[in-house]
Amino acid sequence: MTPDAPAPRRRGRPARAASDTGPDARTRILEAARTEFAERGYDKTSVRGIARAAGVDSALVHHYFGTKDEVFAAAIELSFEPALLVPAVLEGGTDDVGERLARAFIGIWENPTTRAPLLAVLRSALTHEAAAKVLRSFVLRRLLERVAASLDIPDATFRAELAASHMVGIAIVRYVLRAEPLASAPPEKIVAMVAPTLQRYLTEPSA
Amino acid sequence: MTPDAPAPRRRGRPARAASDTGPDARTRILEAARTEFAERGYDKTSVRGIARAAGVDSALVHHYFGTKDEVFAAAIELSFEPALLVPAVLEGGTDDVGERLARAFIGIWENPTTRAPLLAVLRSALTHEAAAKVLRSFVLRRLLERVAASLDIPDATFRAELAASHMVGIAIVRYVLRAEPLASAPPEKIVAMVAPTLQRYLTEPSA
Repeated sequence: MTPDAPAPRRRGRPARAASDTGPDARTRILEAARTEFAERGYDKTSVRGIARAAGVDSALVHHYFGTKDEVFAAAIELSFEPALLVPAVLEGGTDDVGERLARAFIGIWENPTTRAPLLAVLRSALTHEAAAKVLRSFVLRRLLERVAASLDIPDATFRAELAASHMVGIAIVRYVLRAEPLASAPPEKIVAMVAPTLQRYLTEPSA
Repeated sequence: MTPDAPAPRRRGRPARAASDTGPDARTRILEAARTEFAERGYDKTSVRGIARAAGVDSALVHHYFGTKDEVFAAAIELSFEPALLVPAVLEGGTDDVGERLARAFIGIWENPTTRAPLLAVLRSALTHEAAAKVLRSFVLRRLLERVAASLDIPDATFRAELAASHMVGIAIVRYVLRAEPLASAPPEKIVAMVAPTLQRYLTEPSA
């Protein structure tokens, strides 16, 4: 996370290194923010802590991102990057879009690297209104509206959101609550059951 | 909550009133526990705090329920009491069971009195493994297995859990994240879309 090895930690204000500016520092701050929010939760994460983890001054975090909420929004965007591939799934036509969407979603959650930050965002949003607000506006703006725009169906945003709700519910029961038998079911078994549901929500106007 | 008005609060160990034993005290402890867990969350609730709210000695809480986890389990059972009506929905036959189940579920969540404790349980379970464990065993034992037992279909528990996951996801997106348009959709619109999904999960073996 800090490949260019900044000065070792010491008490007080960290030394300002040559790498304190530019795209490297920005990326380092963002990755530190994602890790801090994921490990400590929204409440216990501070701009100061993010700065420390990234090896930069707090002022630089404010300079690049603004308030804690704005850093959180940026960290969410980073965590949701794999999910942003989902709208691309829709470009393959609607014939088996339910199955492709279910498989893309389960794939993102089955991978521990992409799952951990998503879980952290979800936990924060469920317990802190500020985090919920960020997720709400981000999810709406970036995901649902994109998905809906590619659907030729009335109530497209509502339907996309119902499909997303189903996926969120499965993620919670399978990966957070870990309730059996869903927790240990093979991914393909879940895809097979869920695909027709998503297919109906996203493509059948009369349903 | 304390109809028989115990002695007014004062510092130190509360006085042991005549109402400290018997079903009244037990009910009072349970309702105090539900309120404390709902308002403070799992982490910040203590047996001592529950005892104080119920106007009894901590020892009596331990006597009736055992550890904090066991009080939490009992509070969950109380919070889920409305949900325990759900298996009864299945007794009306399978013809339109999806619609009846969707309507029963939305009804429980639309009512603020039954929603608040369910939300509290969900939030606790998503952030504390001890709470998740209690919910996991309770939900499996009391709800899913009862629903599954009344279904004449292979993989009945898996299917009941998929249906429950969908409902949990809708509850989170609609009532916790409050993401539009789902947050403001009329309940009947949600029931109409979700009913065929539940119907398929719970009754169609080939699906």
